[in-house]
Amino acid sequence: MTTIAELQKVVEIALNKENFVTEPEALYQPIEYVMSLGGKRIRPTMCLAGCYLFDDNFENALSAGLAVEVFHNFTLLHDDVMDNAEVRRNQPTVHIKWDENTAILSGDAMLIKAYQYLSKVDESVLKSVLDLFSQTAIEVCEGQQYDMEFESRTNVTVDEYLNMIRLKTAVLLAGSLKAGAIIGKANEKDATHLYEFGENIGLAFQLQDDFLDVYGDEKTFGKAIGGDIVANKKTFLLINALERASGSLMEELQEWVNIKSFNRDEKIEAVRNIYNQIGVDEIARKKMNDYFEKALTSLEKVNGKESMKEELREFAVKLIKRSR
Amino acid sequence: MTTIAELQKVVEIALNKENFVTEPEALYQPIEYVMSLGGKRIRPTMCLAGCYLFDDNFENALSAGLAVEVFHNFTLLHDDVMDNAEVRRNQPTVHIKWDENTAILSGDAMLIKAYQYLSKVDESVLKSVLDLFSQTAIEVCEGQQYDMEFESRTNVTVDEYLNMIRLKTAVLLAGSLKAGAIIGKANEKDATHLYEFGENIGLAFQLQDDFLDVYGDEKTFGKAIGGDIVANKKTFLLINALERASGSLMEELQEWVNIKSFNRDEKIEAVRNIYNQIGVDEIARKKMNDYFEKALTSLEKVNGKESMKEELREFAVKLIKRSR
Repeated sequence: MTTIAELQKVVEIALNKENFVTEPEALYQPIEYVMSLGGKRIRPTMCLAGCYLFDDNFENALSAGLAVEVFHNFTLLHDDVMDNAEVRRNQPTVHIKWDENTAILSGDAMLIKAYQYLSKVDESVLKSVLDLFSQTAIEVCEGQQYDMEFESRTNVTVDEYLNMIRLKTAVLLAGSLKAGAIIGKANEKDATHLYEFGENIGLAFQLQDDFLDVYGDEKTFGKAIGGDIVANKKTFLLINALERASGSLMEELQEWVNIKSFNRDEKIEAVRNIYNQIGVDEIARKKMNDYFEKALTSLEKVNGKESMKEELREFAVKLIKRSR
Repeated sequence: MTTIAELQKVVEIALNKENFVTEPEALYQPIEYVMSLGGKRIRPTMCLAGCYLFDDNFENALSAGLAVEVFHNFTLLHDDVMDNAEVRRNQPTVHIKWDENTAILSGDAMLIKAYQYLSKVDESVLKSVLDLFSQTAIEVCEGQQYDMEFESRTNVTVDEYLNMIRLKTAVLLAGSLKAGAIIGKANEKDATHLYEFGENIGLAFQLQDDFLDVYGDEKTFGKAIGGDIVANKKTFLLINALERASGSLMEELQEWVNIKSFNRDEKIEAVRNIYNQIGVDEIARKKMNDYFEKALTSLEKVNGKESMKEELREFAVKLIKRSR
């Protein structure tokens, strides 16, 4: 019996073995740099898990897992350029450490390298995995596009927001699991249920991220609380609040959104209070729970190894910090 | 019997049928824009020609041809961002017409779309074509990296330069032909000879581009003469001149390279004169001719339809403006 923790170790070892640096070094060193910054390697691990559900030989999914991880880090690299982010995983981003041209071109090379890893899957499933990967990849681009557009829009609806985080975050987790399943020769139905498990867990996880920015504990959340509120980031909470607030509560919320000069803690406290009065915290909690339950229902339908299904359940519980 | 001109028309019709715009429009409209700016569609046409050499059903190579053309336009899009180019094919570049983030993200989506087209080739050759495409694509990135590095280097050798233009320009023409050949079920030997034909024609063509900037006729060249000289662009001519000049000629050349304020026509005339005295014009002419001859020799070795071989010979002659 193989556990998710063991699969994650297999991914780590495989990644450590990879040497991304060849000539010209200026093109490949940034790739080595971003790939070595770490991260939880969730997506490649899920790719192996998706395979192992149906086939003991999870190593068959390793190259697809590396493809997904390289792709994921490529999106972070280019997103950081577009978002002007200076720090990623406590280290300077590539366009800061090198320059913007390097970030663009090394990112392009990473996307191509991802396809080179993908091409190593068994030829019998290559077309199927390739099409899934490309479809997922272009959806991630669409998600990033919507995310950027939403920054300058004032009328983003809850549905639009949910679709954006689905594209930007959830589909890659879902696609990783499904790619693994296809490599493990799962039938279309099981692969689809597994995809839905990943998609709904991804959605729940992203909503939780929004939630914890307002209601989390700084120690366990791992980053400062209230950043989204301070930046007026259009999260699930703010969009819901703007859709539901009325009267003086709406006025107060609008004031805090429009104010240019403010005390950080005061704004966070005030907006959190408004959220509480509107009941946005409960709405978010319910939505997270809905996705979480949907995810488990989909997983239930998957005809795969029971031990790995149990592992995936545990994984979901830990990720969403839910008790079962 | 099908001609290259006919194949080019097939490509044009196929490209016109494609609709690149879906939601989110801001992501896909720039793709439609760059794909509609035209160009000679040489690479996809060569892809069809490569196939037709071995198989009447050149339509089988159409999706790979579109992949190559979308990829080529993706590289132009991202290169224009990196090079701060404001105009492409007499139209504003994407990062000027929209903005830089749009250019980065739409470019990423184009690269993925190229793989989506590629995936439509017959499954029996998918892995082979996919690996060739990725290898070629990453080499084009390497070429762009070297090109950018050379701008700030003063000691670029002739061999380094030739390798750079091989990667940046020649391999994509070569890869397009070879992809077509693979789809046409050519054997490895014939496919490789065809690749070498494309590679050498590509090299000859790029050297001719360098040559015509100094010695061309503005009317037939299609752009102003001397741009490379004015910008001190490290072309085959300048690199050779810097390697070979000595004494007062070297001093004079260095002066023109370093001078900040000058009369445009005077500089062009002076540098051209230095090139003539060193004999750089003859060196370039000889090098172009060597590549041209190598290309024809490789083509000769290809066991494919004679009528299309003759067409490719004519194509090479026209491209390099040589008499046979």
